[in-house]
Amino acid sequence: MYGAGDVRVETVDDPTLREPTDAIIRTVRSCVCGSDLHPFRTMPAAQTGSPMGHEAIGIVEETGAEVTTLTPGDLVISSFTYQDNTCVHCREGFHVSCLHGGFFGGQGIGLQAEYVRVPQADGTLVVVPGVDETGNGSEDLLASLLSLSDVYLTGYHAAHMGRVGRGTTVTVVGDGAVGLSAVLASRQLGAERIILMGRHAARTDLGREFGATDVVSERGPEGIDRVRDLTSGEGTHVVIEAVGHLPAHEQAVGAVRPGGTISRVGVPQFAEAPLGGRLFRNSITVTGGTAPVRAYIERALPGVLSGEITPGRVFDRSLPLDQTPEAYAAMDAREALKVMLVP
Amino acid sequence: MYGAGDVRVETVDDPTLREPTDAIIRTVRSCVCGSDLHPFRTMPAAQTGSPMGHEAIGIVEETGAEVTTLTPGDLVISSFTYQDNTCVHCREGFHVSCLHGGFFGGQGIGLQAEYVRVPQADGTLVVVPGVDETGNGSEDLLASLLSLSDVYLTGYHAAHMGRVGRGTTVTVVGDGAVGLSAVLASRQLGAERIILMGRHAARTDLGREFGATDVVSERGPEGIDRVRDLTSGEGTHVVIEAVGHLPAHEQAVGAVRPGGTISRVGVPQFAEAPLGGRLFRNSITVTGGTAPVRAYIERALPGVLSGEITPGRVFDRSLPLDQTPEAYAAMDAREALKVMLVP
Repeated sequence: MYGAGDVRVETVDDPTLREPTDAIIRTVRSCVCGSDLHPFRTMPAAQTGSPMGHEAIGIVEETGAEVTTLTPGDLVISSFTYQDNTCVHCREGFHVSCLHGGFFGGQGIGLQAEYVRVPQADGTLVVVPGVDETGNGSEDLLASLLSLSDVYLTGYHAAHMGRVGRGTTVTVVGDGAVGLSAVLASRQLGAERIILMGRHAARTDLGREFGATDVVSERGPEGIDRVRDLTSGEGTHVVIEAVGHLPAHEQAVGAVRPGGTISRVGVPQFAEAPLGGRLFRNSITVTGGTAPVRAYIERALPGVLSGEITPGRVFDRSLPLDQTPEAYAAMDAREALKVMLVP
Repeated sequence: MYGAGDVRVETVDDPTLREPTDAIIRTVRSCVCGSDLHPFRTMPAAQTGSPMGHEAIGIVEETGAEVTTLTPGDLVISSFTYQDNTCVHCREGFHVSCLHGGFFGGQGIGLQAEYVRVPQADGTLVVVPGVDETGNGSEDLLASLLSLSDVYLTGYHAAHMGRVGRGTTVTVVGDGAVGLSAVLASRQLGAERIILMGRHAARTDLGREFGATDVVSERGPEGIDRVRDLTSGEGTHVVIEAVGHLPAHEQAVGAVRPGGTISRVGVPQFAEAPLGGRLFRNSITVTGGTAPVRAYIERALPGVLSGEITPGRVFDRSLPLDQTPEAYAAMDAREALKVMLVP
């Protein structure tokens, strides 16, 4: 990416191992994230391009001398951060804060690529046992495996941090791919009622299939009133905010029940917000943040492999990798929910 | 209170029952709260005074026809809010949000008084069995019982909402009466390490007796560095913010560990704060709020009655009720930590 609206496909040198903890993977599928649209809309023009992309599944091609859990030929899922998976913060389940980690995309290593050098490969790549690079013939399986790289588990993080469980009532603000993933994760965790706030029928229809019990298309005060009407005036125990803009946060503040929890996974696009007022008086918890998806891959994998959940359904378009600019444009124009890239 | 710095003791009509759910109590002890100092410093001058005070223990004098749990002569603890203790929010433990409740002090009913009409008496007053109005001869017991009206259980709320438990490391920002109470509550809940941030030696000494394992007198970036030095660079699992001013919040953001929790019980005196940055990236939870102390009185009472805990030690001065203005002045000048009022 060279600036807002300026995504280019370039041929660069193949990556090589640098550290004994590195691995090289050949990507099988990558994709564009909703968070990639923020720089796509706002990045100042630059002389040097930034490598983009932080979601991928791939085949291990080569491993450094200290890599012990990977074998060339393995199909692996990469998380959107790299991490050692052994430091104190990883052990506590917060891999984004790894003492030896970092982010893919925009910082030297982009996963919208044919080959990638993966740092901290043992801590970053999870082997998918018994599946080949065709998804054993299932494109849908590849899509769901790819969703464990970020989008589904970002939705899962929101539900997990909100302590969604049996009997919980949940509102999900936002019908993008993360919001829909949060619906599915909330259902997996046992939510009793899931109110999806969104106005794109194709998306909210998928949300219903993922487990939403109600859809609210109104926004602002009307949207809050609708959620309260649906919950005896009380609001829901948890509100998952999967947008990141201030109006979505304000909807969350209005829709959450006293003593309830706002769990946000939309990267905040606003500088500040009140911490007093309704939040303080009613002991409302604000949680969530950048998802440590590495913490959740193993627990989600069996459900994907068995077909119990199909989080890959958030991909509604597939393009060749060399049409990555078109993928950004389609998502920016809301013509596509989430675009898969095929090298 | 008629305005900033203007507290007057006035003789008014004795209260009478208005609703069948009311009770009249004769106060045995009341006190001044740190939160009373906010209007004491900022309230615009007014023609009509606001009744003040929201903490009291007293003797039941008279009960309305629908009151079933109280008998004249009972020694009772009032929470600083009144509530029915039966509505959906009370049942979920968030009595401040009671559908039929409200706040004492400043809204028609002040507990810095000789007699008080208590609304929703069954839900508001908790009987102290086997104790008379002399505390069975123990002024210290009366002080600790009075602390269950607000201050100790506000500290407890902070620890409870922060999910302090066995092995948790905790930083408490603020050595006021609430901060010290939070130290004691954290110890009761099993915290492994409690770092108290404060610079008043008499207060931090009491904090050590309450269970603080470390005291940090530095503020700002130096204070954050000290907490990190004490915790292998990581920060503590929980930071309790018991002040309410922006610098204290910023200390909390700096001292909390990735994936950790800021639990705040100081009423925010700032309009807005960032929700992104370190909070978002590291999935830090912000919780706490106005304490539903009614939810906690019964569980704290046995420890107070047995002498296992002595939260009343935060009272370091006692004045007759007719010297209430002097009580405010002494706390405002930081000459006293917390002043008890004796009718």
